[in-house]
Amino acid sequence: MANTTANSTAASTEYRIEHDTMGEVRVPAQALYRAQTQRAVENFPISGKTLEPQHIVALAQIKKAAALANAELGVLDDERARAIAEAADQVATGRFDEHFPIDVFQTGSGTSSNMNTNEVLATLATRALEGQGVEVHPNDHVNASQSSNDVFPTSVHVAVTGALVNDLVPAMTQLAESLERKAAEFRDVVKSGRTHLMDATPVTLGQEFGGYAAQVRYGIERVQAALPRVAEVPLGGTAVGTGINTPAGFSARVIELLAEETGLPITEARNHFEAQANRDGLVEASGQLRTVAYSYMKINNDLRWMGSGPNTGLGEILIPDLQPGSSIMPGKVNPVICESTIQVCAQVIGNDTTVSLSSTNGAFELNVGIPVMASALLESIRLLANSSRVMAEKMIDGLEANVERCRFLAEASPSIVTPLNKAIGYEAAAKIAKHAVANKMTVREATLALGYVENGQLTEEQLDRALDVTTMTGPNA
Amino acid sequence: MANTTANSTAASTEYRIEHDTMGEVRVPAQALYRAQTQRAVENFPISGKTLEPQHIVALAQIKKAAALANAELGVLDDERARAIAEAADQVATGRFDEHFPIDVFQTGSGTSSNMNTNEVLATLATRALEGQGVEVHPNDHVNASQSSNDVFPTSVHVAVTGALVNDLVPAMTQLAESLERKAAEFRDVVKSGRTHLMDATPVTLGQEFGGYAAQVRYGIERVQAALPRVAEVPLGGTAVGTGINTPAGFSARVIELLAEETGLPITEARNHFEAQANRDGLVEASGQLRTVAYSYMKINNDLRWMGSGPNTGLGEILIPDLQPGSSIMPGKVNPVICESTIQVCAQVIGNDTTVSLSSTNGAFELNVGIPVMASALLESIRLLANSSRVMAEKMIDGLEANVERCRFLAEASPSIVTPLNKAIGYEAAAKIAKHAVANKMTVREATLALGYVENGQLTEEQLDRALDVTTMTGPNA
Amino acid sequence: MANTTANSTAASTEYRIEHDTMGEVRVPAQALYRAQTQRAVENFPISGKTLEPQHIVALAQIKKAAALANAELGVLDDERARAIAEAADQVATGRFDEHFPIDVFQTGSGTSSNMNTNEVLATLATRALEGQGVEVHPNDHVNASQSSNDVFPTSVHVAVTGALVNDLVPAMTQLAESLERKAAEFRDVVKSGRTHLMDATPVTLGQEFGGYAAQVRYGIERVQAALPRVAEVPLGGTAVGTGINTPAGFSARVIELLAEETGLPITEARNHFEAQANRDGLVEASGQLRTVAYSYMKINNDLRWMGSGPNTGLGEILIPDLQPGSSIMPGKVNPVICESTIQVCAQVIGNDTTVSLSSTNGAFELNVGIPVMASALLESIRLLANSSRVMAEKMIDGLEANVERCRFLAEASPSIVTPLNKAIGYEAAAKIAKHAVANKMTVREATLALGYVENGQLTEEQLDRALDVTTMTGPNA
Amino acid sequence: MANTTANSTAASTEYRIEHDTMGEVRVPAQALYRAQTQRAVENFPISGKTLEPQHIVALAQIKKAAALANAELGVLDDERARAIAEAADQVATGRFDEHFPIDVFQTGSGTSSNMNTNEVLATLATRALEGQGVEVHPNDHVNASQSSNDVFPTSVHVAVTGALVNDLVPAMTQLAESLERKAAEFRDVVKSGRTHLMDATPVTLGQEFGGYAAQVRYGIERVQAALPRVAEVPLGGTAVGTGINTPAGFSARVIELLAEETGLPITEARNHFEAQANRDGLVEASGQLRTVAYSYMKINNDLRWMGSGPNTGLGEILIPDLQPGSSIMPGKVNPVICESTIQVCAQVIGNDTTVSLSSTNGAFELNVGIPVMASALLESIRLLANSSRVMAEKMIDGLEANVERCRFLAEASPSIVTPLNKAIGYEAAAKIAKHAVANKMTVREATLALGYVENGQLTEEQLDRALDVTTMTGPNA
Repeated sequence: MANTTANSTAASTEYRIEHDTMGEVRVPAQALYRAQTQRAVENFPISGKTLEPQHIVALAQIKKAAALANAELGVLDDERARAIAEAADQVATGRFDEHFPIDVFQTGSGTSSNMNTNEVLATLATRALEGQGVEVHPNDHVNASQSSNDVFPTSVHVAVTGALVNDLVPAMTQLAESLERKAAEFRDVVKSGRTHLMDATPVTLGQEFGGYAAQVRYGIERVQAALPRVAEVPLGGTAVGTGINTPAGFSARVIELLAEETGLPITEARNHFEAQANRDGLVEASGQLRTVAYSYMKINNDLRWMGSGPNTGLGEILIPDLQPGSSIMPGKVNPVICESTIQVCAQVIGNDTTVSLSSTNGAFELNVGIPVMASALLESIRLLANSSRVMAEKMIDGLEANVERCRFLAEASPSIVTPLNKAIGYEAAAKIAKHAVANKMTVREATLALGYVENGQLTEEQLDRALDVTTMTGPNA
Repeated sequence: MANTTANSTAASTEYRIEHDTMGEVRVPAQALYRAQTQRAVENFPISGKTLEPQHIVALAQIKKAAALANAELGVLDDERARAIAEAADQVATGRFDEHFPIDVFQTGSGTSSNMNTNEVLATLATRALEGQGVEVHPNDHVNASQSSNDVFPTSVHVAVTGALVNDLVPAMTQLAESLERKAAEFRDVVKSGRTHLMDATPVTLGQEFGGYAAQVRYGIERVQAALPRVAEVPLGGTAVGTGINTPAGFSARVIELLAEETGLPITEARNHFEAQANRDGLVEASGQLRTVAYSYMKINNDLRWMGSGPNTGLGEILIPDLQPGSSIMPGKVNPVICESTIQVCAQVIGNDTTVSLSSTNGAFELNVGIPVMASALLESIRLLANSSRVMAEKMIDGLEANVERCRFLAEASPSIVTPLNKAIGYEAAAKIAKHAVANKMTVREATLALGYVENGQLTEEQLDRALDVTTMTGPNA
Repeated sequence: MANTTANSTAASTEYRIEHDTMGEVRVPAQALYRAQTQRAVENFPISGKTLEPQHIVALAQIKKAAALANAELGVLDDERARAIAEAADQVATGRFDEHFPIDVFQTGSGTSSNMNTNEVLATLATRALEGQGVEVHPNDHVNASQSSNDVFPTSVHVAVTGALVNDLVPAMTQLAESLERKAAEFRDVVKSGRTHLMDATPVTLGQEFGGYAAQVRYGIERVQAALPRVAEVPLGGTAVGTGINTPAGFSARVIELLAEETGLPITEARNHFEAQANRDGLVEASGQLRTVAYSYMKINNDLRWMGSGPNTGLGEILIPDLQPGSSIMPGKVNPVICESTIQVCAQVIGNDTTVSLSSTNGAFELNVGIPVMASALLESIRLLANSSRVMAEKMIDGLEANVERCRFLAEASPSIVTPLNKAIGYEAAAKIAKHAVANKMTVREATLALGYVENGQLTEEQLDRALDVTTMTGPNA
Repeated sequence: MANTTANSTAASTEYRIEHDTMGEVRVPAQALYRAQTQRAVENFPISGKTLEPQHIVALAQIKKAAALANAELGVLDDERARAIAEAADQVATGRFDEHFPIDVFQTGSGTSSNMNTNEVLATLATRALEGQGVEVHPNDHVNASQSSNDVFPTSVHVAVTGALVNDLVPAMTQLAESLERKAAEFRDVVKSGRTHLMDATPVTLGQEFGGYAAQVRYGIERVQAALPRVAEVPLGGTAVGTGINTPAGFSARVIELLAEETGLPITEARNHFEAQANRDGLVEASGQLRTVAYSYMKINNDLRWMGSGPNTGLGEILIPDLQPGSSIMPGKVNPVICESTIQVCAQVIGNDTTVSLSSTNGAFELNVGIPVMASALLESIRLLANSSRVMAEKMIDGLEANVERCRFLAEASPSIVTPLNKAIGYEAAAKIAKHAVANKMTVREATLALGYVENGQLTEEQLDRALDVTTMTGPNA
């Protein structure tokens, strides 16, 4: 780094020369990173997408924990360890994110991003120790007792765990609560049930919203069910899971420190060879998000159908107006949050394909599809969290029932004949229902017209009690 | 086979002993197959699913073509060639399908099924030549100039090409024609358009059905666009694409004979190494079926929504009643063909995942996921063909429009204000539409109420002409 | 059924006439089912695939539990309830499976199969009560307090739970144990690690097999993590989740009886509206199977690469010979169980697409893609269970290490330079590794050649200790 | 805009007030967009991802074509039309991309982005006409004869067609040519074929690279096969496909102008109702990219296996060194371009799920998943194009064969016994191969040892000719 400083002060150039084990590389003069980062920038001009910010945070947190554990276990002197830890703290604030320029579509182990982190921290720590004349080396010091092969996957599991626990679960909880408030509000709004899209027996709108809320709550359970395996990390396994070049006790200690640093329920891999070679925990987590996405699709499809119209659709609810809906049809308003969310779901489900398929990209001691798994999974979490909040705040919270329309349709359904099964049997009841539809009568009218009261099978009082749509929304009293 | 016969005549046993290069195997006494088939039966007790029948036909057709080409090119004597060809003709009738007992989930090259074919044909041909005392060997004669690695993938491409050309395309054509007849029948049925599920400007039901028919026709184009690459076969490449152990000219000649035998547009692989190592043509074909499946989902979803009700849904069409719809709700009838078809689509799309993912199962000179690709793809074709016919015959052909309901809804749509844009501008038109909905007026009433006629921006005649829903179903005259 | 019997005894016909609410239907004379089953057979000539056997068992178990609960709660007389329960016991043995002929691709609620069950049980129960002159009606008695909409999804969850608990988990356990035995056996077999497919630091073959075993054990955890939600059933919700036409307490009681009958941890849906409308629990379970399938792909890919050769590949292990591998290349043997299993994985992953995509087939109170979800998911479980057993028995149990080859390659890897990092730094160690490869030397030779011992940075003893591949398979002592 | 200007000159505010049909909105003072764009920015704080740049270009090109067609057909005065066209030209340069801030996850029709374009162009055109005191209205002028429902999907098809034709196909061609050069260079490099990963008969490395080149060429054919349907656009259909509010002849003319403007083979939808309601052409194109991605996976997997080692793998080729491969294992170099590319493939395949699944997001006259389809598909094209170039330039062009190693392995394969089949039969040849492997002999040695020359079945000359690996790389001479 002495050379570097010399170079970067040279007035006439915007580059400095750095070297690594393969030779010299020109690096932007102001860059905190060095040769290996620069090589990777040049090797991978693919997508323009870099690591998600919380992923960089996780890398920094790991480097800090490793520096401290290395110091405790005698691998690193306190001075360097402290300098590395402090540099990591700075990186974790996000203020140096621009010094992490490597494309997602890089080496499959994330070695380039691990080395990027090592280089940035080495530069910052070396600067901090400039007075003492102490150099901090990216590999020998920052990366001590580590390998990209344990650090990088650990960083993904940490970032994903954090995003699930601190972002997605709270957002889903907000959505569940919003739906639960509506379930309470709509408790007595009777409407027609629909099965196969055809008129069925009545439900309340509150029951439906309670169902949606439950579905979101189950989604939270699904995320949490995956956490134990997502939060297990391979750190300490170094190159191939054996822990080569680590001091005894390193893995347990560094993970303990990492758990403290992050406040997350991070645990050490129960089997370091499984943990090194596979990212199945990420695949599992992605699968749960996929299930949540399908749940959200169902909820939003129901909502936009219920809100369809205003005049030619179902018209059972009023979704808040957010923006004009058409550039040509004046006055049209559309269920745009539903549509935005369903598109998010399509992206999450596509990302799940990316994440899971990347499993085939593993052989022996390493999966080499980790950066894209990280990128896709962290994007999915972010999208679902944001959509959960937007759904709650911009749609559910302001949603209103069209109570009269709901009741009207409930009473129009020929399936309200169903309670008569018990009195006159399924086949007779079917006759009434068909008669009602064919002759555009109410079920009550059809029952009378077909003589079921006249012939004494039912009294009019029984009939009225049976046809009360409100009592149909629960089991027999 | 002499030994075999001896064994199988032994009164006290139902098995006979066969051998192959690995030793002896007990085989059911009546089986036409021999040792290698039996080993595979025992090695793969996985699914209980065997090759699709048309796949066995294709294997037989290849063996016949190879025998004839081998005779022409001096590799096989005429006697054996003729006996093999005749045996293949018998197998192609399907009457020996039970002698093809090997599970789909077998060796990835389909070697077991190729050897099964070789063994059955060797047995039948040897029997036919019993009088002459001539033996036909599964490898040396039936399989001469061939390898499983070119025969088996060729058999899949032949079976798939045949199923596409002879089964799926005619079935899709039947469906398109059925939809086209309805498009003509519904030409004048004006109904509300719907975008975002919200009331839009009018269309005719005939326009919608014309769109469905076009979508099916595009699907046929998609299938046909894939055919050139599906119909290319690796036959003649033998073990690794080099054509080792074939006489000069074999590949071209055997494929010529195969094309004649099958009546299909089968062609020789332009590059035998690509053709040997990859099944991309199957992946492409599967992708086209996947697109067709999504088209069918759209059509069936539209149909069941249009048919929803009878009283609480859209009620625009009447889907033929096929069976009682509910075990509890009397008189209910559901759009069951739509549902059956959409489930078919889900299976086809899942099969497409199976087929395409199997691409990752190739390395160097061979893909070893061919049997499951064949099984999934042939199933998809069969399902889509059957569903196309069932949709046409049991649903579309008998479908009726609810003309009055359609017209009523078309006129109720606030978007019929759209033609007024040109006269009074988008913003004024939006005011009218909103006023109409808010006050439960017609658009005409709202236009008058807001004074647009009174203030001279429109004459009443202009207004009436603008609001004629029939003229809205095309560009300006 | 009196008429039926009369008809079926008529000498000259093989059909009898049955009726339902839509009219009369001709039914095969010997069929236990009646009109609605026959309609469905005719409506859905799609795949030829019927319900999986254990699915029929689950339907029978539900009908028995419902009959008993109905009797307890006064909905059904004891005589009919007992007759239905006994008929259900018979159906659950599988001996009447041929009387369940309806295609998987039927009505999306499975109403046809629920009615098929109702009809078969009504016929059997009526026959049993023939002496008493008591008729048992498919809807009014067998289906009392039930709807297809709660019965059919419940049957899927019961069948899936049973298949997971009683078939898949034991099979996976067998596989894990087989792998664990090999991990112990191969504990001291040192071999080269591989990351990015490139030579890495050593591991033991036992560590790798321990990793595979752990991966299978995690798979079991994944399956079990999904069970709580798979085992929740909607029974008691009847038509739309409200429990219309059930006596108070029915849902809890019938599920209690069902849990007893099946011996499975079946529980009542915490929210009957979520449970009625969505099959997310199946999607989640399918997602876990998908993750297991990707795990199996990794394991089998590793195994077949380790076994590649015998002369041009890695040649580290010997996979048991099961069958001749080629119809043209004599003496070739292939890793056929690996290939069979990977094809199973492709099918399971495709089925997962089918199952999850079917979520989009739900609206309001019902998903109408349930039969295909059931078919795909039960097939996946069956395939994975069978493959787990076959892998264990036909491959892992008989697998042997090529100990010398493993050791030879371990020592040939230039990455064994890694322990020198600590003594001479990463950059100097890189020089040695590159020198060794470029000059086809051992790492030891290159270290000496570059003068690291001569110049006193290392003693020869330190060098030898550092380069002992055995000690590299763990952290520093 | 008069107000706007007034507001934005007010010193104390960074916002101005805009209005639309729903009321007033605060907009950043310098923004070229207006109220509807701002609403969308606020409604969709989801991903931070905006439209791909070429998508904005396509929108501008459509607006220009529409303005010109409108002028020709008398819908728009020449002055406004010219101003709009010029403004569109400016937007198409990309310099105003920052004024297109709306999230991808917006309204499913892309109405927000269509209105964004309308607003930006209205602002620019109004500014240009400021001197004349002429205002250009976003809806009444810029959007004249158009609807989001035809404009936005058209913009996607135009952008996708352009990206396929101008970016992807040239990049794939570059890759194919690079592979073809290597095929020529490696024409005589004999190596062992591998099937099932096991030693097979020889091929040349040139044959393999020729196969890869062919696979890429087939990929180009696949892309081109989809073009006819991708290049069909719904423009002119306006709101629902009927062309409401367009002058006669508009659709044909505007598309003619658009084809000229873009230089692309854009054609008018053959059926405007199909074209309006479905995006199947995009699904089909995505399916072809998916197939290409699987092809690339195969090629890159082969390459990294061939390059595996240097000492413990196959070591048949040398992949150019691009960057240090490990932070812990000194001197290690990895096949990073292969890994980058395979990750790209995983993303493309995931995006394909997103695109195809979005088909389920259509109902009646509109699909409402278009923005995410556009985003995913354009990203896939960009990734594949960049990866194709990077593969060619950074890997294939510099790749070298390890000729001796290749030849050594070719001769070591026991499958070189295969030509002996013709002389001594498959079963005898199998004995030789097995004997060779078991006794670590060459095939020649084993043949002699088993007495096949001694007993006169073969002469030594025949044997030597048969075992020449070079002649095995083609059919019999």
